[in-house]
Parts: sequence; structure tokens; C-alpha cells
Amino acid sequence: MQSLSVALGARSYPIHVGSGILADASLYAPHLRGRRAAIVTNAVIAPLYLARVRTALGAAGAAAAIEITVEDGEPAKRWETLDQIVGTMLAARCDRQTVVIALGGGVIGDLAGFAAAIYQRGIPFIQVPTTLLAQVDSSVGGKTGINHAQGKNMMGAFHQPLAVIADVSALATLPARELRAGLAEVIKHGLVLDSAFFEWLEGNVERLLAGDPEALMYAVLRSCELKAQVVAADEREAGLRAILNLGHSFGHAIEAGLGYGRWLHGEAVAAGMVMAAELSARAGLLDPPAVARVRALVARAELPTEGPELPPERYLELMAVDKKASGGKIRFVVLEALGRAVLRDDLPQNAVRAAIRACSATVAAAQ
Amino acid sequence: MQSLSVALGARSYPIHVGSGILADASLYAPHLRGRRAAIVTNAVIAPLYLARVRTALGAAGAAAAIEITVEDGEPAKRWETLDQIVGTMLAARCDRQTVVIALGGGVIGDLAGFAAAIYQRGIPFIQVPTTLLAQVDSSVGGKTGINHAQGKNMMGAFHQPLAVIADVSALATLPARELRAGLAEVIKHGLVLDSAFFEWLEGNVERLLAGDPEALMYAVLRSCELKAQVVAADEREAGLRAILNLGHSFGHAIEAGLGYGRWLHGEAVAAGMVMAAELSARAGLLDPPAVARVRALVARAELPTEGPELPPERYLELMAVDKKASGGKIRFVVLEALGRAVLRDDLPQNAVRAAIRACSATVAAAQ
Repeated sequence: MQSLSVALGARSYPIHVGSGILADASLYAPHLRGRRAAIVTNAVIAPLYLARVRTALGAAGAAAAIEITVEDGEPAKRWETLDQIVGTMLAARCDRQTVVIALGGGVIGDLAGFAAAIYQRGIPFIQVPTTLLAQVDSSVGGKTGINHAQGKNMMGAFHQPLAVIADVSALATLPARELRAGLAEVIKHGLVLDSAFFEWLEGNVERLLAGDPEALMYAVLRSCELKAQVVAADEREAGLRAILNLGHSFGHAIEAGLGYGRWLHGEAVAAGMVMAAELSARAGLLDPPAVARVRALVARAELPTEGPELPPERYLELMAVDKKASGGKIRFVVLEALGRAVLRDDLPQNAVRAAIRACSATVAAAQ
Repeated sequence: MQSLSVALGARSYPIHVGSGILADASLYAPHLRGRRAAIVTNAVIAPLYLARVRTALGAAGAAAAIEITVEDGEPAKRWETLDQIVGTMLAARCDRQTVVIALGGGVIGDLAGFAAAIYQRGIPFIQVPTTLLAQVDSSVGGKTGINHAQGKNMMGAFHQPLAVIADVSALATLPARELRAGLAEVIKHGLVLDSAFFEWLEGNVERLLAGDPEALMYAVLRSCELKAQVVAADEREAGLRAILNLGHSFGHAIEAGLGYGRWLHGEAVAAGMVMAAELSARAGLLDPPAVARVRALVARAELPTEGPELPPERYLELMAVDKKASGGKIRFVVLEALGRAVLRDDLPQNAVRAAIRACSATVAAAQ
């Protein structure tokens, strides 16, 4: 196991990355002794890991552990599920000392984290991410929330966990499609922040797809390190942190345009990153060969390099309500080089339309 | 106009208390210039003050001001209303720079403040309280939230406003019953923190009931000063701040037991404070003559000194799910003297039952 810290002063917390560690009582003990736990999970994860986590919480000295099983998948990120979690906790008389345990993927982390953020105006929680996406991205940094009919993650909170326990052995049970979706965020970290890591991914993407534990462990650890640095510098996304949204404006438009859940988040981000690279090139920021490397790595990760059949105007409309829009302008994360991302809100709409067309097979064919 | 500051480091903010100031553009200008405003109010307040606030926002340089009118009263503090606010803001393309203006009483402040806390993971807001309760209590300190079927304010956030603009001239249009309800929280501040202020209230309660502007101005200012000191010392209610909940455990039981909205919050708190004083005496902490002074001042403020017809066991049951309950025990705020409150979680249940019976006419009569 390796551990690193997200440096946020009084809200600093450790990220533990290892194999089999979700059953390690010593990782829960500092936070749970004598307190109640409320484990939020879903029906897919529960049979795989719930018993082991319960045992670990008991060994860690938790006073009690209630279980809340919610529906699987992105549609769970809505008010009714939040109300179910809060209602179950109230019925079990969970007080402000209770610790929420988010056991599952990104949806569970976002949902359980937001429930913790608002339950009695805020109680602590621990992230136990079981998908690659959650381990490398969503469990780190305190972003929590639910979706609104008009947009993804439109209601939420910045609420940092007490700890993140990322057990790479859980990835062995992950469907291949979800592993690939997680790889999109891994690639993103390289693209945004670390060209050496991007190169490492070019050399190791097949090992990751094959589930090689050593490669996965390194990819998770390096992703968490990179993300932790950015979060420590800009917890509430006042500036720098927004660069981690590379591909997300386009990606959210894809998800919202198709209806949440059709594409996985990571799949939408993958196509979105290629669009962002194309946009960077069309704005004169990035060399065409670098765009080709982005597209090639995304393709080797068996992720989509093109968006679905949506007209460019629909993309622009959907991106304008995205919360990354500032003052009416659409702000994009673009690349100046592999490993170096910047924010720009002054890009010509023609370049944006051209980038969308270049990465949108059906629409391009119709031109 | 007088101004004071809630000292919370980077989250410090001013409270302005004066007459006619809700129309003073200079108080909004530092926060609104070039930004959008979303005014949340209700159909009772809108005809009285909305036009003046809109004009002030325009003069302050706001880019635009959208209006969101929600239903009146405590039942508005529920998910559907929050969804209405968020949905209207999304449809109007409000971004993270938008400032929410909470124009109304405590319900509007709690609701609009919580909407601001969770909208796109948090945007700023300004409190423009128009009731005495909101001016002296709920608009100061950043507590926001909505109710759950199983308990009041069970979902919420600590989200500090950018400023509080407390216009005492708005109290002229306040129904007498609501003015009295606000007085309960004014009395509470004296009881908990300042015996001299309690004595001032004993000398001036009739002036306050009559709506004397000078007396109201002093009462609002002194209440805000006292509350601001406590909030600055303990923003998130880790300890000290809980003393401001004098009467609230009993009061919440009254509100929840009857169904929210039957009694006004301040009315429930008034009866709750008498119960807390009785409990203090029965636990040997407070002299009986002091209890009599509490009861007498509450009565002179034309507020209830007794709870409704609920058995003591029902109170205990309802108080145990109150979020002030800690580790399964019920924690009470009690008085060691007029002007000095303390937290105790070791009080004998018999004393609690006896205090409830002593302040619960119908039940007492049935004994």
C-alpha cells in the first residue's frame, strides 16, 4: 500500500492505494472508533464487498453500521435517492457524529458525499471507490452532487472526505467497459499535467486494459498525486482546478444531449478530450501531430474518439448551461502541449464548431 | 444605519441595520457590479419590497435580476421549492458568478441560502431579512436548509452570506403575531448571553410590541452583535454555538409534533425557553425566581409559556431525532443564570419530563 496526502490545511486527508485494503480495519479506525457508520452502496457492489467492509468497520471499533442500498447507475444521482439516504439515516437516528462510507463507483461517491454534505448541515464521510473512474478522479477532491433535469451535477457541494481508500483489487470485478471509461480520466491527468505520464500511458495502455495489477496501481497512484496537487492549490475551482475539466464541456454536452446514462461519463470525456485537442489545434495552440497522439491513445484505450450524432449548434446550446460557463461565455480547457492545459474563454465559435464537426462522424459525413 | 461585522476570516461579512436601507444601492454595489442577481421571495413580500430591491440592484450595477417567487410559509422549506429555484436559475442560465438575494423572512433565507449553497456547488448570496425573526437570528450565521418529513432543517449547509441588510422599516408591515415570534429570539439572546440586555427587554418589551422604531433598531442591533460573537467563535456549531439553541430542542419537538406551520417557530421557541428554564431549575442550576422572570417576560411579549397537548414521551421521542442529539443522548441548553447558558447531556430524564409537564397545561391538568 502507498499513501499520499491531499494538503488542505485542517481538511487535509490521506489517499491510500493498495490491494485488498478495503478490508483493512486500521485504515478506518482513526475515524470510526465509537461512532456510527452509514454505508451507502448499490445492489451490484453490495454482494461483492459489503460484508468485508462491515467486518472491517466492526474491527475498527464502529458503534454500529447501517446499510443503505440504492439503485445502480447514473440515474441514481437524483433527489429521490438522496431523500432515501437521508430518510434511512434519520430513521436509524444517525446524529452528527455518524460517518458515511461511500462504497462504490463515482455515482455512489457523488451521491453519498452530497448526502454527507447536507445531512444535518454536514457530517464526515470516507470514500471507498471500487471503480477505476472513482479511484483516479471522482473520489479525490471533494466534489459531490446530483443531477438536475437541466444539467449534470447542477446541485452539489465541495465536501472533502476524511480519507480515500482505493483498493485496486476491486478492479478485477469491474466490467471491461467501465475499466476503459476510467482510463479516460487517467489519460486526462497525463494530458493536462504530466507529459511523462502521458508517455508512460502510451507504453502501457494494453497492460492497463488487461487488468495488470502493477500497472493499475501505478496509474491510480500517479493520477491521485496529480489531482491532489491541483486540488490543494485550488480546492473550490476558483481557477487552476478547472483545467481538470479537459474534455468535460464537450463530454457533458454528449451526456446531456443523449440523456444521462447512454454513454458512460468516461466515454463522453474521451470523445470530449479529442474534441478539445482538435479545438486547441484549430485555435493555433497545439501541433497537429500532438492531436494525432491524443486520438491514437484514446483509440488504443478502446474509447470513442468521436461524439454521437448531434449538430454543433446543439453542443453549443448544451455547453452554455454547463456550470463551467462563466459570464455567458463558454470557457474551454485547451492544450498548449501534451501535459500542459490552459483555460480560455476567447476561442472563436467557428473553431469550436469545426472541432465538433471533425470529431462527429455522422454530422461530418452530412456536411 | 449602523454596521457590524461577523468575523470569520475570509468569510467575514457585514450586517447593516437601519431604516429604509433595503433600497440603498450602495450596500449591494460591492457585491453585484456586473454580476447577475436571482431574487428569491414570496407572493406576500414581493408586492411590498421587490420593486425597490430591483431598482437598488439596477443602480448597484447588476447585469440582470431574475425573480423567483415561491409559496409563503414553512411548508415551502422542502425539496420541490428548492428544485423550483434551481430550475428557474438554470433556465435563466445563471452561472457561478450569480448572486442570490434572499428577500423575506426566515423561510426565504433558509431556502434561498441553501439553494445558493448547492447551486453548481455553491454561489454567493445576500440576506435581506424582512421579519424580526430573520433580522435578529436566522439571517446571521450561515445556517441554511430545508425540512425532511422526519425532522426540521435535517438537510442543509453552513453557507455564509456576503452581507446582511436588515431594514427595520420592513417590520411596520409585519403581522403582530410574527413580530411577537421574532421577539422570542431577541429574548433568547438576552437569556443566553447578556443579562443587561435581558433587563433592557424587561423595561422595553411593550415598546417593541408597539413597533417603536428606535427600540426595534436597538433590539435588532444588539441581537446581531451577540449572535455575531458566538458565530465568529464557533462557525459550524462544534461547541459554543449550540448555546444559541436554548429552547430549540423543546421547540422543534412542538413544531414537529404538531406538524410544521401550526405554531410559528418563535412561538415554539418561546414555550421551549420556559421549559428549558424549568428544566434548569429542576436540575438545580437556576433559582426559581429567575424562572419566574423568564416566564413573565415571555408572557408580556404575548408569547406562549406552555407547550401544546403532547405527552412527555412524545417530546422525548421527537427530541431524540433532533440534530442537536449527540451520540444517542439528548443534549440540552440550560441556564446557570439569566444571561449565562451551558450545554448539558447528563440531565435526568425525570427532570426533563417534569419540566415538560410543568409547561404543558393540558397534560399537567390530566396528571
